[in-house]
Amino acid sequence: MSTNKILLNKIIKGSIFEIILNNPSKRNPLSLELILELQHLFDSIKRNKKIKVILLKSTGPSFCSGHDLKEVKSFSSSNKKLSNLFKKCSKMMMTIRELPQPVIACVDGIAAAAGCQLVASCDIAIATKTSFFQTPGVNIGLFCSTPMVAISRKVLPKDMMYMLLTGEKISAKLAKDYKLINLVTEKKHFHKKILAISNKLIKKSFESIKIGKIAFYNQLEMPLEKAYDYTSMVMTKNMQTKDAKEGVEAFIKKRAPNWTV
Amino acid sequence: MSTNKILLNKIIKGSIFEIILNNPSKRNPLSLELILELQHLFDSIKRNKKIKVILLKSTGPSFCSGHDLKEVKSFSSSNKKLSNLFKKCSKMMMTIRELPQPVIACVDGIAAAAGCQLVASCDIAIATKTSFFQTPGVNIGLFCSTPMVAISRKVLPKDMMYMLLTGEKISAKLAKDYKLINLVTEKKHFHKKILAISNKLIKKSFESIKIGKIAFYNQLEMPLEKAYDYTSMVMTKNMQTKDAKEGVEAFIKKRAPNWTV
Amino acid sequence: MSTNKILLNKIIKGSIFEIILNNPSKRNPLSLELILELQHLFDSIKRNKKIKVILLKSTGPSFCSGHDLKEVKSFSSSNKKLSNLFKKCSKMMMTIRELPQPVIACVDGIAAAAGCQLVASCDIAIATKTSFFQTPGVNIGLFCSTPMVAISRKVLPKDMMYMLLTGEKISAKLAKDYKLINLVTEKKHFHKKILAISNKLIKKSFESIKIGKIAFYNQLEMPLEKAYDYTSMVMTKNMQTKDAKEGVEAFIKKRAPNWTV
Repeated sequence: MSTNKILLNKIIKGSIFEIILNNPSKRNPLSLELILELQHLFDSIKRNKKIKVILLKSTGPSFCSGHDLKEVKSFSSSNKKLSNLFKKCSKMMMTIRELPQPVIACVDGIAAAAGCQLVASCDIAIATKTSFFQTPGVNIGLFCSTPMVAISRKVLPKDMMYMLLTGEKISAKLAKDYKLINLVTEKKHFHKKILAISNKLIKKSFESIKIGKIAFYNQLEMPLEKAYDYTSMVMTKNMQTKDAKEGVEAFIKKRAPNWTV
Repeated sequence: MSTNKILLNKIIKGSIFEIILNNPSKRNPLSLELILELQHLFDSIKRNKKIKVILLKSTGPSFCSGHDLKEVKSFSSSNKKLSNLFKKCSKMMMTIRELPQPVIACVDGIAAAAGCQLVASCDIAIATKTSFFQTPGVNIGLFCSTPMVAISRKVLPKDMMYMLLTGEKISAKLAKDYKLINLVTEKKHFHKKILAISNKLIKKSFESIKIGKIAFYNQLEMPLEKAYDYTSMVMTKNMQTKDAKEGVEAFIKKRAPNWTV
Repeated sequence: MSTNKILLNKIIKGSIFEIILNNPSKRNPLSLELILELQHLFDSIKRNKKIKVILLKSTGPSFCSGHDLKEVKSFSSSNKKLSNLFKKCSKMMMTIRELPQPVIACVDGIAAAAGCQLVASCDIAIATKTSFFQTPGVNIGLFCSTPMVAISRKVLPKDMMYMLLTGEKISAKLAKDYKLINLVTEKKHFHKKILAISNKLIKKSFESIKIGKIAFYNQLEMPLEKAYDYTSMVMTKNMQTKDAKEGVEAFIKKRAPNWTV
């Protein structure tokens, strides 16, 4: 692309928000600058009701290579700077979960270290067959300790340990078997598949997705009984929304629902 | 069947307790009435030592479609009624875990929303090849927030999110890949498979299953060290039972054990 | 082998520590003696920086059959002795996680009960195609309550319950599908595969593996936000190590790194 911005965005069909990591010559690294731009962007769309789904893409051939190691090196004389980098990155990753919109990682290329963490932090992930996933920190003496927080909450421990200890690239097919991603597709069908799933999601009641997505991650960290108390309350409130009343009514009357937004 | 009861039950072979959801024309919905009947039934067999395994079946073609939406609608003017419905349902689901007997979901047909939660709440699940699983709340503006509590404790988050956000039906084969169910079978082998696994379970020491099943779900929510302290105590007590003494003795002497019940 | 020691060990290539369960006629049971010997051995190598990877093997045809039931029986008149056995065993299992070195279970034969727990407790597991995994306590009236602590933290609940309730042997292929193990191999390639993965691991920065492995299991039990706070601190400290500085430098300069040990 002809821009020198490291982060691009555009709206498709009025409600699909496409974010593009755009520093391809450096393999789209999660520099502090990019992290802060992503944070700013997420914060700015959090309350935008027109946006119903977020796509996280990249200008190829990489998806995201993780932290910018030259930057990490330049920060290494200051614990404060390093700590700030990892905390800002963690905050940005957690913000993905707090967004009301579903966030879909659209991976075409390598997703390594914090780049792999980014994929893990999204709600849904789709990847081309030739994409790779990796936690290579062990190869440079800097274990992928923050990336593993997100990834180990999506895949089971033996698979995670294999990735962390060997630092090996794993294929998209294996990443799907690990449950790190949802779908693997031929490159020629990549955009069609992304649009297909986006189109499905934008037709849902955004009000209910907003309620449900936040509740999902909240209840996941609760013991069972507390999770049920919490979600019983959530469903009771959800049923008071216009969308739920309309949706239930439409279902009973066997007609299509009309959502508020 | 010629009855108008929405819940049937019978004992097979003296120790297999078969529960049948029996409101097929309405797709066996989890109405408050059915929830309370299930609760009552579970409570009544909790201490029945003759019952060694519980099968949860349905009068087809559906397994269970979730809450009765007409009822949900009729409750929607009262937060108290709605909240009571979801709490009673949650309590019934948790009771399945607290039963000493293994509960096997025998799914032939659609298991949707709270119906899918019911499958997730059972200890083991077997389904016919043509069965489907779904969390379709997002399609009617009422996110499957209570169902996801049970399901997200059985499957990994990316798979769960895909189900919740798309509201799509997933096949029995995919549900097995998700680890929501254990076995998929041709319809013609369905009853044979259910009997085969039931027959295996009723030959085990019920005393040890009772101890182990409760301990399993308890330890699952503990940090590792506490879980080991707890289960070390459980095994010590277990070893004091007649069945364990008999079982260990029989194993050493290479003979079949004679259980207390 | 010509020794009568129940636990053997040797160093391969200067940094691979091979531990061999060596009581084949009794199927390598985890007697209190073996548990204490393993504990002692683990404690003695914990601070040995020459050892970079630990292999847990067996003298065949069994890997490990679990507790010694004759011993369990002899302890059964004393709750104190039984409790001590299970606690010492649990402690030994937890020590595997606390070792700085990656521990690879190399399974060729049956891994049952506490033997299966041993496999689950290792960081990585590789098994021959003909190996089997089993939690057979239910068959002798003594539910596998301590083994399930380790196993249920590696596999999903429905799979775990199937193993626990049926007591059935599951194949290496199925154990891989359950994510209990990482790799299944033909027996003729077993040692080659073990060496291949060991050789990969010993070339990594041991300093970073040490930091990362401990952090991995610690963060796994924390809620998300706390896990990020913790690992942000871990990565900051990690970046101050000689290995990380060297590794990052080498990566930027596109040369091979020279680790401290």
